[in-house]
Amino acid sequence: MAVQTVASTTPVDLGPAAALSCRECGERFELGPIFACASCFGPLEVAYDLPSGDPEGLRKRIEAGPDNIWRYAPLLPVPADVADKPNINPGFTKLVKADNLARELGVTGGLHIKDDSGNPTHSFKDRVVAIAVEAARAFGFTTLSCSSTGNLAGAVGAAAARAGFRSCVFIPHDLEQGKVVMAAVYGGELVGIEGNYDDVNRFCSELIGDPLGEGWGFVNVNLRPYYGEGSKTLAYEICEQLGWKLPDQIVIPIASGSQLTKIDKGLQELIKLGLVEDKPYKIFGAQAEGCSPVSTAFKAGHDVVRPQKPNTIAKSLAIGNPADGPYVLDIARRTGGFVEDVNDEQIVDAIKLLARTEGIFAETAGGVTVGVTRKLLEAGVLDPALTTVVLNTGDGLKTLDAVAPTTGPSATIRPSLDAFRDAGLAG
Amino acid sequence: MAVQTVASTTPVDLGPAAALSCRECGERFELGPIFACASCFGPLEVAYDLPSGDPEGLRKRIEAGPDNIWRYAPLLPVPADVADKPNINPGFTKLVKADNLARELGVTGGLHIKDDSGNPTHSFKDRVVAIAVEAARAFGFTTLSCSSTGNLAGAVGAAAARAGFRSCVFIPHDLEQGKVVMAAVYGGELVGIEGNYDDVNRFCSELIGDPLGEGWGFVNVNLRPYYGEGSKTLAYEICEQLGWKLPDQIVIPIASGSQLTKIDKGLQELIKLGLVEDKPYKIFGAQAEGCSPVSTAFKAGHDVVRPQKPNTIAKSLAIGNPADGPYVLDIARRTGGFVEDVNDEQIVDAIKLLARTEGIFAETAGGVTVGVTRKLLEAGVLDPALTTVVLNTGDGLKTLDAVAPTTGPSATIRPSLDAFRDAGLAG
Repeated sequence: MAVQTVASTTPVDLGPAAALSCRECGERFELGPIFACASCFGPLEVAYDLPSGDPEGLRKRIEAGPDNIWRYAPLLPVPADVADKPNINPGFTKLVKADNLARELGVTGGLHIKDDSGNPTHSFKDRVVAIAVEAARAFGFTTLSCSSTGNLAGAVGAAAARAGFRSCVFIPHDLEQGKVVMAAVYGGELVGIEGNYDDVNRFCSELIGDPLGEGWGFVNVNLRPYYGEGSKTLAYEICEQLGWKLPDQIVIPIASGSQLTKIDKGLQELIKLGLVEDKPYKIFGAQAEGCSPVSTAFKAGHDVVRPQKPNTIAKSLAIGNPADGPYVLDIARRTGGFVEDVNDEQIVDAIKLLARTEGIFAETAGGVTVGVTRKLLEAGVLDPALTTVVLNTGDGLKTLDAVAPTTGPSATIRPSLDAFRDAGLAG
Repeated sequence: MAVQTVASTTPVDLGPAAALSCRECGERFELGPIFACASCFGPLEVAYDLPSGDPEGLRKRIEAGPDNIWRYAPLLPVPADVADKPNINPGFTKLVKADNLARELGVTGGLHIKDDSGNPTHSFKDRVVAIAVEAARAFGFTTLSCSSTGNLAGAVGAAAARAGFRSCVFIPHDLEQGKVVMAAVYGGELVGIEGNYDDVNRFCSELIGDPLGEGWGFVNVNLRPYYGEGSKTLAYEICEQLGWKLPDQIVIPIASGSQLTKIDKGLQELIKLGLVEDKPYKIFGAQAEGCSPVSTAFKAGHDVVRPQKPNTIAKSLAIGNPADGPYVLDIARRTGGFVEDVNDEQIVDAIKLLARTEGIFAETAGGVTVGVTRKLLEAGVLDPALTTVVLNTGDGLKTLDAVAPTTGPSATIRPSLDAFRDAGLAG
């Protein structure tokens, strides 16, 4: 693997991050822009020296922090003064008590939507990119990059603009104009690649190993170990917003599976630090039927995830060969959870259900989690008497096409009271 | 004027709201779903019995409140227990310190963007609708309604869904599909009216006076006095987020002009209550050249606002006959501010400037305020050495068309390093 060298005279300061460690063989490496183990090629993740011994003090310090993910700086791979640096400051999004939805679904133990559409570019990607930005700063990178077909492009463009990085984002050349606008409006370079998303990814891998890519931080490749840690903040916020309590059940969408594994990591850290009382919790994964490699493996009892060719409206989850798939299987099984999928019609129904009951217009990924929640409640797999948190990781404004064909006016009438009376809508 | 009677045995509890008073002749009326003075037809607004005598206690009470507009419940026409009712809970959006933009514009005194794209449906309309919902509850209405061509329809649909109201929203029948989807997805009734926006409004006025509209709260008509008060929360938040200080200069978009007048009202209340130290502040109004009745009157020195036929990309500001126009003129003149306009090209440039410098993708209305800020700085009307707050009241995702024609990829290439090198983007 090509490791880029960046001139540095002082050791890298990423706060409590102590090293990178291989998720497979445990070998440790110095903090740097690397992402695979030199011994076994396993994925690297951040290992910490976390603060210990004074949970009450730590909790107070967090509560006195800013209303964004930097309140958790002591638990993240970022310098202590991160909140003073220019960054897009995502997080601390609403945990919505979804009482109307709970009534419809028969949940009595408390149903909550963690609504990440409230982030600056309206998806959870702002969380992971914000952490990658600080790593890029620490390693002396000057260009932020990624391959993307949607949410990530906007998150990188916006974060780079605020943080003072050049950005260069790669997309398939035939994306819809709306997505192109969202990716380009922040003024960074946007490069259309003649080919599909796989071609774009292959090209980016080449670029990382080439002198042309020197000084480039690809947020989800050579900065991936840091980037992934951003998802831990979802776990921290959920527990803090529940009054420093673990939920009983969490339903999480699966794309690469990284978000689910990092939420579990975050929950484990909170327990270890004494910030929440230890008790069992169950983690449920949600996929679209048209891209369900993990749920298929789960239900078949397999440990290995067989790749699929995605075909679903839930494009932000359409990763056919999810890198963290096996870890997701482990976590769902260890915690007593489940991995389920819903089809496109069920996704659209669930988007509308959430909008109608709670006034939250979710991206297709939110339709997947709400749809799976409904399906697992009907199957008796989710316990309606337990506290349940469902993630909405994106915004319906970005996937209007999913609901457009079945969402329109109740009636179209002449501007007269008679016409209105005849339409039968006076109610 | 038809006043709807709603059966009620107990007096209406809207917290510190004591009465409605006529903005023109001062006559007072009982709290109710009325909006024009029975004597002089002037607009009614909410008069309060505000808490007094203990500013430090009030400040602490606010700071201990929820992270939304209900922290200011003691200053709003809502019951004290409002935070416990199902509502969409908007507000407490980010006040972004815009240092990059300040550098480009030469502002040295501190430049801040109040970014209301962070609201639940991504515009400031969530604030005003949330207050209208509580008034509708108090008056026993069961249907929430409005005429709209955009932001308001989504805000009403979402708020009604959460709060348990039926909703029925009226739109011109030929709106773009994206806007129709946003208005319809929350599951309320959506009625297309064969005609333009004026026809829709005329129809709604008829409906309010007809038995068919009994039990209906039109948020911006018969609930308008309450609805308008929601904009005060922008003033409260800005001052609290500046550390309980008044800004020196505020740049506010003008549609009907209500938002600007209510922000001024909010600032005056904070001074009167002792929550901020009294000092001069200047209020600046921002319009699009293609709908600039107020800036035209201001610059001509007129007291009367002559209606215009709107023709601008800033559709959320395109009110040709702004009801609060004369009050805006008063406030801008009294505070030593100004009212200016920018053309469509300047609006688009300003949207891109804000996106490129701060990673904030604003609606066209945000392009208007940022564009006017730039123009007034260049003209020496805004003082670059003073603390300045600029409002972004909406989200660029809702007005993609404005920037789409001039926003696209830097290059489209084959997936090869040679092609990338030739494109000259390696940087």
